[in-house]
Amino acid sequence: MERASLTDISLYRPIPAAQVPAWDFETDVAIVGFGATGACAAIEAAGTGARVMLFERGSGSGGASALSGGEIYIGGGGGTDAQRAAGFQDSTEDFAAYLKAAGGPCADEAKCALYAREALGHYAWLKAQGVPYRGNYLPGKHIEPTDDSTLIWSGSEAAAPFCDIAKPAPRGHVIAHMGWGGGRPLVDVLEARARSLGVEVVCDARAVALVKDGERVVGVVVRIENQDRFVKAAKGVILCTGGFVFNEDMRRRYCPETLRLSSPIGDQDDGSGIELGVGAGGDAIHMEQYFSTCPWTMPEPQAYGVFVNEAGQRFINEDCYHGRVSRTALDQPGDRVYLLLDIAHFDQPLEMAGLTIAGTGDSWEEVEQELGMAAETLSATMAFYNAHAKEGRDPLFGKRTPILTALNQGPFVALELNFRTSYFSFFTLGGLRTSTDGEVLTREGKPVPGLFAAGRCTSGLPAWGHGYSSGLSLADCTFFGRQAGRKAGAA
Amino acid sequence: MERASLTDISLYRPIPAAQVPAWDFETDVAIVGFGATGACAAIEAAGTGARVMLFERGSGSGGASALSGGEIYIGGGGGTDAQRAAGFQDSTEDFAAYLKAAGGPCADEAKCALYAREALGHYAWLKAQGVPYRGNYLPGKHIEPTDDSTLIWSGSEAAAPFCDIAKPAPRGHVIAHMGWGGGRPLVDVLEARARSLGVEVVCDARAVALVKDGERVVGVVVRIENQDRFVKAAKGVILCTGGFVFNEDMRRRYCPETLRLSSPIGDQDDGSGIELGVGAGGDAIHMEQYFSTCPWTMPEPQAYGVFVNEAGQRFINEDCYHGRVSRTALDQPGDRVYLLLDIAHFDQPLEMAGLTIAGTGDSWEEVEQELGMAAETLSATMAFYNAHAKEGRDPLFGKRTPILTALNQGPFVALELNFRTSYFSFFTLGGLRTSTDGEVLTREGKPVPGLFAAGRCTSGLPAWGHGYSSGLSLADCTFFGRQAGRKAGAA
Repeated sequence: MERASLTDISLYRPIPAAQVPAWDFETDVAIVGFGATGACAAIEAAGTGARVMLFERGSGSGGASALSGGEIYIGGGGGTDAQRAAGFQDSTEDFAAYLKAAGGPCADEAKCALYAREALGHYAWLKAQGVPYRGNYLPGKHIEPTDDSTLIWSGSEAAAPFCDIAKPAPRGHVIAHMGWGGGRPLVDVLEARARSLGVEVVCDARAVALVKDGERVVGVVVRIENQDRFVKAAKGVILCTGGFVFNEDMRRRYCPETLRLSSPIGDQDDGSGIELGVGAGGDAIHMEQYFSTCPWTMPEPQAYGVFVNEAGQRFINEDCYHGRVSRTALDQPGDRVYLLLDIAHFDQPLEMAGLTIAGTGDSWEEVEQELGMAAETLSATMAFYNAHAKEGRDPLFGKRTPILTALNQGPFVALELNFRTSYFSFFTLGGLRTSTDGEVLTREGKPVPGLFAAGRCTSGLPAWGHGYSSGLSLADCTFFGRQAGRKAGAA
Repeated sequence: MERASLTDISLYRPIPAAQVPAWDFETDVAIVGFGATGACAAIEAAGTGARVMLFERGSGSGGASALSGGEIYIGGGGGTDAQRAAGFQDSTEDFAAYLKAAGGPCADEAKCALYAREALGHYAWLKAQGVPYRGNYLPGKHIEPTDDSTLIWSGSEAAAPFCDIAKPAPRGHVIAHMGWGGGRPLVDVLEARARSLGVEVVCDARAVALVKDGERVVGVVVRIENQDRFVKAAKGVILCTGGFVFNEDMRRRYCPETLRLSSPIGDQDDGSGIELGVGAGGDAIHMEQYFSTCPWTMPEPQAYGVFVNEAGQRFINEDCYHGRVSRTALDQPGDRVYLLLDIAHFDQPLEMAGLTIAGTGDSWEEVEQELGMAAETLSATMAFYNAHAKEGRDPLFGKRTPILTALNQGPFVALELNFRTSYFSFFTLGGLRTSTDGEVLTREGKPVPGLFAAGRCTSGLPAWGHGYSSGLSLADCTFFGRQAGRKAGAA
C-alpha cells in the first residue's frame, strides 16, 4: 500500500485516519516523550491493563527531568514522614494556599486543590515505584541540596508575602542519590518500573503528527530512521514532550521577553507537543510565562546580599526563592541589576554564573560612584537597609533574619547580573490547557477525545514565573502524568 | 433544503462548505465588524471593484473606534502638513524607531517599517475619504485634546528612554470635530464613504462561524433575527471584530492580570473574531498584552505629580505617556500606588477616576506616616526628587522639565490609585497574527487562504502595553484594515 506522502505530515494539523496507509504499531495508549512525565503516565496506563507504547525522540529516557535536581514539591495532609520527623505538620489548606499563591494570576485552582489533597498519596506512590528517600531534613536555604537529604526548603514558603498566606513548611523532597543531580536517578527508577510493567519503549522516534478519526485522536505518526511510522492508539495519545524553550520562533510569538536571555535549559524542548495539541484542537494558555534563575545564592555567602536595580532601588525581599528574585530582577528597567555584598559576605562568584564585579569601594558611596549612579541612590538605599537590618526589620519588603543582615563591613562590592550575558537559565511554563485528568481541553473547555498531556507542554502547577519553586515542575510532571496515564488507560 | 442544525455552528471551528444548505448572501469580500477597521477594509475592497458586504452585530457602525478620541498616530517622511507647520520634520527612520520601541519585545518589525514608510500616504488617503483636519498644533501634554486641534503629543516621544531612541515629534492627528470624542465622527466619515462606494451593510448580524472549502475560507455564517444566514465570500472574509476585553473566560486563559481591573473599555469586544480565526487555523500571539490607563493627568496640575509604590519608591519618569505610567504602576508589588502632589499642583481629582485621598500632611514625613509607611521611605524619595528637580535633573528615571518640578509647597497629599477600585480602563492588545497584507497567518507562518483580519482582533502596531501611545490602535486599525481590504479585494 502506498505511503502517505511526506508533505501531508505536519505538527500543525492531524492527518485523517483514512489517509493512514497501514498501522506500523498498534497499542492502546501511545505516549510521546520519555522524561518523568512520560514514565509516570506509562506506569499508570499500564496499571489499568492497557497496552502502552512510549516513543522518545532521543536515544533514551531523560528529557529535562534528568537535567533537574530531582526535587518534587510535596506536602499537606499533616505532612510527609520527612516533614513530620522535622517537626512540620503541613496542612492541606496551607499547602493548597501556597500552591495557589505560587500560581499567581495564572493559577489553576482545580489542579492546586487536587494536588494539595493527594500529594501524600503521590509520595507513597513514588516510593512504591522504588524512588528512595533517606527521610532526613536539611535546614537552611539551598539552591540544590549539598547532599541527598530528603527534605529541603525549595521555595518562598518562609518569605513575604507567602509566609503570611500559608504557614511555612519545607516541601522539596529529593531522591536519595549520589553526585550532583537527582533528576537522572529519578527517571531511571521510573523507567525501570515502566519497563517491568511491559511498557514498550521506542527511542529515536520523533512524533511528527497526530492522527484523527473525526473528532477523536486515534494515533500518532513517528519518524524512525527517516521513515514515517503510523501508531494506532486505541485509547489515546499522551503528549509529554516538554516546553518550547528551544523553539525561537515560538518564543518570538508567545514569550518574547526571553529573547534577550542566553541560557535556555531543557533537553529537546522545541514545543512540538504544544503544536501537535493545538493542531488537534487544544488550547494553549499562559504562553508568555517563563521560569528564570541566575545562581546568585552560590556561593552561599552571596545569599545575604542585597539587590538594587539601575536606579539604586531595592525591588524584592531577597530571602525569597532565588528564581523569584531573578525573575523579578528581569522586570526591572534597563538590562542589569546589582547584587551588593560586604567583605563579610563576599566570596569568589561562580564562574559559570557570569557575574562580574561592576564596582567596589570602601563605602557604599564609593560603590555608587563607581557604578556611575547619582549620589544618595544606592548609598541611601544601603543606609536605610542597614539601619533597619540591625533592628531585624525590612520595612520595604519584609525580608527576614538571618538572611536580613546589615552589610556594613567594608570593602564593599557590587556584582552585576546582566540580563544578556549572565547565566540566566530559563524554561517556558505556558502550554496546553488540560483538565485535572490530563485531558487536553479545547478553547471551549471540552476534552479533545483521545488526547492527553502533562508536564511542561501544559500549563500546570508552575503556571507563573514569579511564583516558581524548585520541585513544582516535577510535582506537576509526575502527578499529572499519572492522572493522564490513568485516564487514557481507562478510556 | 434542510438547514444545518444549530449544533454544527461554532465560533471554534469552521463548517465545511458542503454542509451549507444554501447561500443566503453572495459577495466577493465579507467583512465582519463595522468599526474604523471594517470601514477602511470595506472602502479599499470596494476600490478594487469587488462586491463587498459588511456585517455588524450591533445596530450600526461604531465599535470601540467610535468610543475613542479619534487620534491617529501619523508621522515620518519629513512630516505631515500639520507637523511641518509646527516645525517638526519627522523622518521615516525616527518614526520607525519609535514604533519599534513602542512595540517592545512584541514589536512586529515589518508592520512598523511598512507603516513608517507609508503613513504620510495614509494620511492623504484619510483626507481623500473626507476626514477633516484643521491642521493646527496644540503644544503641551494632553490626555484628550481640549479642542479639535489636529496635532498633539499623544505618546512618550519626548520622554526617556524614547527621546534617546528617536527624535521626538508629536504624531497624534485628530479629526476636526465638535464635542468630546473624535472617534464617532471619524467612523461616520468612513461609513459614508463606504456606503457611497456601494458597500452593502447588514447590521444586527452576528458572525457565528466561518465556512471552509478544504483549506480555504469561503464564507461566514451570520445570525440575523436568530436565524443562521450563510454568506458566500468568493474572495475572502475579513475579521475586524476587536479585542477580547469583554470575554472573561478568554482573559482568564490568556490575560489574567486584567482580572483585578474593573473598567474594561470597548464596544462588544468579546474575542469572537480571534476565536473564529484560530478555529480556521490562525495563530493568536501576545495574548497577555493589554493597555491600561487611569486618568491621573486630569485635572492638568496632577500631571506634575510623582508616583510611588507601596514601598515609597518611584518607579518611572512620570512625564511619559499616561498609559505607560499606569501600566507600569500595575507592575508594582501590592495593589495600589500613590500620586504625590503639593498644594501648588493639587486640584479636585476627577470623580470618575476613583482616586481617593489616602494621606495628607504639612510635610512629606507626615504624609508618609499617614500612609503607614516606614520613616524615610516616601519622605526620602521626595527629598531626593525635590533636590534634583530644582537643578532640573531626575537622576533615577530621566524625567524632564517642565513636568519635572519640585513639590515643596505644603500642605501635601497622596492620592491612591487602587488597582481594583480606581478607574483603570483597559483593553486587550493580543490577537491574530497577520502579514503586513492583513492575511491571517497559521502557526507555520503561512496565510490561511481566504482569511484576513485587522485591528484589535490582531496583534499589530500597539503590540505591547507598556509602549502604547494614543492613536497607535486607530493607526493600526485604519492602515492595516486598508491593506486587508485591498488584498482580499484583489484575491
